[in-house]
Amino acid sequence: MNGLLPEGFHDRLPPFADAAAALEARVLDVARLHGYERVDPPLAEFEEALGTRLKAASGKDAVRFTDPVSRRTLAIRPDITAQIGRIAATRMAHHPRPVRLSYAGQVLKLRASELRPERAMLQIGCELIGRDGVAAVREIVTVAVAALEAAGVPGLAIDFTLPDLVEQLAPGMAADRLAALRDALDAKDAAGVAAIDAAFLPLIEAAGPFDAAISRLRAHDSSGALASRLDGLEAVAQAVEGRVALTLDPTERHGFEYQSWIGFSLFAQGVRGEIGRGGSYSVIGAQGDEPAVGFSLYADPLLDAGIARPERRRLFLPFGTDADTATRLRGEGWVAVAALDEADTAQAQLCTHLLTDGEPRPL
Amino acid sequence: MNGLLPEGFHDRLPPFADAAAALEARVLDVARLHGYERVDPPLAEFEEALGTRLKAASGKDAVRFTDPVSRRTLAIRPDITAQIGRIAATRMAHHPRPVRLSYAGQVLKLRASELRPERAMLQIGCELIGRDGVAAVREIVTVAVAALEAAGVPGLAIDFTLPDLVEQLAPGMAADRLAALRDALDAKDAAGVAAIDAAFLPLIEAAGPFDAAISRLRAHDSSGALASRLDGLEAVAQAVEGRVALTLDPTERHGFEYQSWIGFSLFAQGVRGEIGRGGSYSVIGAQGDEPAVGFSLYADPLLDAGIARPERRRLFLPFGTDADTATRLRGEGWVAVAALDEADTAQAQLCTHLLTDGEPRPL
Repeated sequence: MNGLLPEGFHDRLPPFADAAAALEARVLDVARLHGYERVDPPLAEFEEALGTRLKAASGKDAVRFTDPVSRRTLAIRPDITAQIGRIAATRMAHHPRPVRLSYAGQVLKLRASELRPERAMLQIGCELIGRDGVAAVREIVTVAVAALEAAGVPGLAIDFTLPDLVEQLAPGMAADRLAALRDALDAKDAAGVAAIDAAFLPLIEAAGPFDAAISRLRAHDSSGALASRLDGLEAVAQAVEGRVALTLDPTERHGFEYQSWIGFSLFAQGVRGEIGRGGSYSVIGAQGDEPAVGFSLYADPLLDAGIARPERRRLFLPFGTDADTATRLRGEGWVAVAALDEADTAQAQLCTHLLTDGEPRPL
Repeated sequence: MNGLLPEGFHDRLPPFADAAAALEARVLDVARLHGYERVDPPLAEFEEALGTRLKAASGKDAVRFTDPVSRRTLAIRPDITAQIGRIAATRMAHHPRPVRLSYAGQVLKLRASELRPERAMLQIGCELIGRDGVAAVREIVTVAVAALEAAGVPGLAIDFTLPDLVEQLAPGMAADRLAALRDALDAKDAAGVAAIDAAFLPLIEAAGPFDAAISRLRAHDSSGALASRLDGLEAVAQAVEGRVALTLDPTERHGFEYQSWIGFSLFAQGVRGEIGRGGSYSVIGAQGDEPAVGFSLYADPLLDAGIARPERRRLFLPFGTDADTATRLRGEGWVAVAALDEADTAQAQLCTHLLTDGEPRPL
């Protein structure tokens, strides 16, 4: 049966498709209450326009086809964030900053990533365009956490990173030496780091639970070069303290290449891998780059873990139940399945309740 | 600015994207209360599998690409109904009949149709698989009307058709003569019809308001060949009588080629063109064909007409408003936009209300 669909593609059946709709609605309702308004970019765009806004890696992932109308190449979006940036920079360029936008939609990738087997995925997210300071990041992290809480996601954890920390600490370092240092830090290769500059060893050792990591970094920051970064990071973390397990991996860069000063990954108990990520970045605009912060959630691992599954409560209406009774029961919130003929049964319709003497009774 | 996107593709900006989500939620919530559970097929499938279930016309409309994993051709869905049929016939083949399924999602077409300039569209619908009798059609028409009413769509109208009526009336007619007759009826070419068989002229004259059309057809049906069809049609219409303007065009076949005994088009006051269509049809299954009924709504013309646009009520929280106050106000249902610094203003954030002395006041 799996052979019916290509690898990485799947049908969401009941009750998982209802769960997907509920997850999307709950997440974006929290965003709405924080002032984020939905935008809905199209599935496909001119490849050129989309490509310039995509991370290099995801640009290669896009499905391409020739448009018979324009005779130009179009690409199916492998990511929605890039489209939100385009909208903010062009059609909403006149809108005062910051602009708060949210979205939910399908994305399509030609190839699965190392970590995710899916090639068709539901992406849900929020972007705040025009700011990337501590207050903006605090808001984005708060919205992400409140949204996941509202969707019933248990055991939330956030892993923060400071993608430009190494550059901050080594303003004068030669490019090739900096690259080697970054590679050694990414690999958590202490000997390699020591060979380049032992002063960076504390960055490896600092990775771990948030408060301890911050303390260790402050202890090693005798020059005070990191003070403002660490103050900002603490202010961000404080907004969700006590609700979320917090860690810091100060040099983690993988997947955060396009983030500026801060990035974060979201995790949930019992869900494999990341459930989302976010951070600060730049939006390319006609008048130069604009700062922005945002987050994206990957709905599929959450749904696979059973998040937002609705309770299955179905009332069977025997053949001949009058329309007014059916309307009244549905008005009371009952999922009421009507028999279409004498042969229909409550059991076959997977009902939990049966209308008996005008009242729903459990089966 | 329009040049940013290919012809037939567009961004939905605030408040239209929120309206799209609200329309989808309201329509599918009515369906849910009638027992329809959501399914969510993927954006792309093997072209071959999708193609056999698509109407010939829409198969040609599909965007195709080569899958680097399977090295086979995949197609982006130009229509979701075909995918629902596949799910019912394969993964849900074991499920007792009838199966009630609903869906909402984006579809993509290589070319726009004569009537619709969009090539990326939101399709929303319901399918009832395993029955196509009067009770099943009654239910589908009832759900379609109740869903559109719940979404606030004004001035609903339904135009019914009986796609196999001519075959019913001419059981022994030679294929070429039947084809000529159908063409003449489609063209409302009275002279052409008369030249073939004047007995079919009443079918052209009968088109119009429902009750009058039924009366005219009954008057001409001296043999009683149409009696069961007309009885069924009247029973279907009776379910929505008084809420919807009803018409009948008994020989209309355009776009209903794959419908069996009944088809219908949905219209709304102030909205250009059809807003949806439905009817009875067959689902290809491993054990032979299965009867089914369903409807699809085209969300885009409804949204362009301003349906389901949310009220824009935004409360500005001045810089320094404490988090507990913000949480309380959002809990009361306020869209509360927080200032990120002293420079942010209620006006720039397009707010309608300002938090003053702890209370929201209109601006």
